[in-house]
Amino acid sequence: MASLPINPPSRLLMGPGPINADPRVLRALSAQLLGQYDPAMTAYMTETMALYREVFRTANEQTLLIDGTSRAGIEAALISMIEPGDRVLVPVFGRFGHLLREIAERSGAEVHVIEAEWGTVFTPEQIERAIRETQPKILAVVHGDTSTTMAQPLDELGAICREHGVIFYTDVTASLAGNAFEADAWGLDAVTAGLQKCLAGPSGSAPATFSPRAVELIDSRKSIEAGIRTDGDEVLRAPIRSNYFDLAMIFDYWGEKRLNHHTEATSMLYAARECARLLVEEGIDVAVERHRMHGGAMLEGLRGLGLEVFGDVSHKMNNVTAVYIPQGVSGDAVRGELLDDYGIEIGTSFGPLHGKVWRIGTMGYNARRDTVLTTLAALEQVLRRAGAGVSAGGGVGAALDFYSDERAADERAADEARAVELAALETVDL
Amino acid sequence: MASLPINPPSRLLMGPGPINADPRVLRALSAQLLGQYDPAMTAYMTETMALYREVFRTANEQTLLIDGTSRAGIEAALISMIEPGDRVLVPVFGRFGHLLREIAERSGAEVHVIEAEWGTVFTPEQIERAIRETQPKILAVVHGDTSTTMAQPLDELGAICREHGVIFYTDVTASLAGNAFEADAWGLDAVTAGLQKCLAGPSGSAPATFSPRAVELIDSRKSIEAGIRTDGDEVLRAPIRSNYFDLAMIFDYWGEKRLNHHTEATSMLYAARECARLLVEEGIDVAVERHRMHGGAMLEGLRGLGLEVFGDVSHKMNNVTAVYIPQGVSGDAVRGELLDDYGIEIGTSFGPLHGKVWRIGTMGYNARRDTVLTTLAALEQVLRRAGAGVSAGGGVGAALDFYSDERAADERAADEARAVELAALETVDL
Repeated sequence: MASLPINPPSRLLMGPGPINADPRVLRALSAQLLGQYDPAMTAYMTETMALYREVFRTANEQTLLIDGTSRAGIEAALISMIEPGDRVLVPVFGRFGHLLREIAERSGAEVHVIEAEWGTVFTPEQIERAIRETQPKILAVVHGDTSTTMAQPLDELGAICREHGVIFYTDVTASLAGNAFEADAWGLDAVTAGLQKCLAGPSGSAPATFSPRAVELIDSRKSIEAGIRTDGDEVLRAPIRSNYFDLAMIFDYWGEKRLNHHTEATSMLYAARECARLLVEEGIDVAVERHRMHGGAMLEGLRGLGLEVFGDVSHKMNNVTAVYIPQGVSGDAVRGELLDDYGIEIGTSFGPLHGKVWRIGTMGYNARRDTVLTTLAALEQVLRRAGAGVSAGGGVGAALDFYSDERAADERAADEARAVELAALETVDL
Repeated sequence: MASLPINPPSRLLMGPGPINADPRVLRALSAQLLGQYDPAMTAYMTETMALYREVFRTANEQTLLIDGTSRAGIEAALISMIEPGDRVLVPVFGRFGHLLREIAERSGAEVHVIEAEWGTVFTPEQIERAIRETQPKILAVVHGDTSTTMAQPLDELGAICREHGVIFYTDVTASLAGNAFEADAWGLDAVTAGLQKCLAGPSGSAPATFSPRAVELIDSRKSIEAGIRTDGDEVLRAPIRSNYFDLAMIFDYWGEKRLNHHTEATSMLYAARECARLLVEEGIDVAVERHRMHGGAMLEGLRGLGLEVFGDVSHKMNNVTAVYIPQGVSGDAVRGELLDDYGIEIGTSFGPLHGKVWRIGTMGYNARRDTVLTTLAALEQVLRRAGAGVSAGGGVGAALDFYSDERAADERAADEARAVELAALETVDL
């Protein structure tokens, strides 16, 4: 069998992720490897921990990478914290809530689920009521669920969890860096993520952070492999059911002990470090604002094309929008034509939304003005040829108006700031 | 916090792995991403399956990547095949045997262990006796264990397993492509590997293959997540304890159904595909022969430096050699000086060998004449300065002699082949 080197076709990935990686992340991926215990390698690991503390907005010492996709991060967090029989409460408002439930069940938990209709989120009161009723050890909830585009507000849940002695876990794969998130201020005990959305990297590494309370729980279950065990290392409790996802061992690998566990996925570590480095360089708030602006332009542009937006827009993530596929139009045919004729990918959907909505992302490296306008321009052409009623220039026009309004608002804000400054100077002069 | 882009120092990695990646693999890593269901992406997945069938020497349809390090591959294989209470036999002859035991235990197996002294391997009779005694469902044995440098002969074990109705699993992370391996001819049911040894790639992707018998076992435990379940999908048995490592679901993701599971780690897939592509281009037998030759030169060179080789050399892997640290010499100081002054990394060791031997690899991209001679030249200098008795030029000389003898043997073989050819031609002429 003869095969050629990798040479992917040029694509603009405007679906719910993965999206195009930032070229600087691709360059980091191509750096030569290091030995596991090379001082340069362990320094990169330590720097990566510090960078993700900034990204997650946390002081947690145990902030590190799980070597696998974002789903691996979820499983590592849940299986390391759940002892068989533990009660876990999972509020489900989309596909990834079902995934949390499923992983918790496989970890041996007694899982209690509350469900919200797809396209909506829970109120803090609904979640607190369920906590009172089920008395869980862990609350596990997705922050942003790309299946519905919704972001569950988390800022009030930490206090509720503290009050009831509940460990508070969330997955922020879809939302991190595109929407406000504050691990410590919101009282999170465990948070997992992925690189392939607003972090502008490839799938395959899962940044995660664990509060001292979560670490205490996990470390109480620590066991050490026979092959590298020394005297004094004792198993205290029933071991964590996974070796690969045993966070107690992973903490010791990333920590001062540097106790060998897996062989760190060096290239993915390089990528994950670069994703965080670029975000910190840009500023997390600036990145969130960039996602708000370009996500807003896309939303208005899609409406301008005559498409109806799915779900409760006031709780939509900045970085992804779902729109109903117009009557009489084949969702797959439109997606295929966009890909074949324009090299642009938009997303299909799962479960109850399958065949009903497209999901269109503006995230990470692709949260930009040129990607928004190009996508709207191409989508207009494809929709027209598919027989949908679209107004010529309506999508691009609405997006451009949105950008103008944003700029005008920025200028007004700058003028006001300047006026305040001048007033202050005049006061000084007097 | 300001941090700079990734810029690793130049290293020649001559330890037990990871080693330097082939530059072509690094270039593959830096290719831009694709959507999960882009036809170009699914074509790369399908090509990767075909390439690894050649690397593993198998016709198994289910030949794919587990998204994690080689340890993830081991856990995926074991947790997907083991139902709690199943008996598993693990012959342990080094650290990674302990790892198999540990992962099987955490998967809920009743594990039976037989142990061989580090530096030795088992006879087929010893393993067959243990199979008779313990009647396991699964035999799980490491092929090459880098902790001791030994390779367990596997070629007779498949027939024994068939006779006793035992599923035969091995991990070939350390050995694949550097030592002969034949998944089908040797009767393997499940095999897992990694990229960071003789495959010349980064850690973080685990190629694996499963026989129809293993697939039948795994598929009988299939379950589908609620979030993407449709009518007719039913849970048949107790589900696999892990979602991330549920091979039944991973088969459906890589197969024609393309049922969404994780988001494939695209960059690591590119790397894994390129590792296999380069091997197939070189020829698997040619690659094994290359490892035999340069591993042999390193072995003779180390002996030529006056170092004593650890373990049963007749069962040593081609790609790694352990030598005793000379009396009065600090193993860590020598390794540190090699790294600091020459940029060359050699390996330390684990468990009972810790502080007693160095492990020196000649694998993947670094199984070359220049790397062998450079390492021996530098090691001679460092050993001399550490006060060890070394003969000037003894290491490099022995390696060069080995290469000369190999070349002479090659020439003799070529001469003989030419003589046979000529004789045949003369016969034709008559």
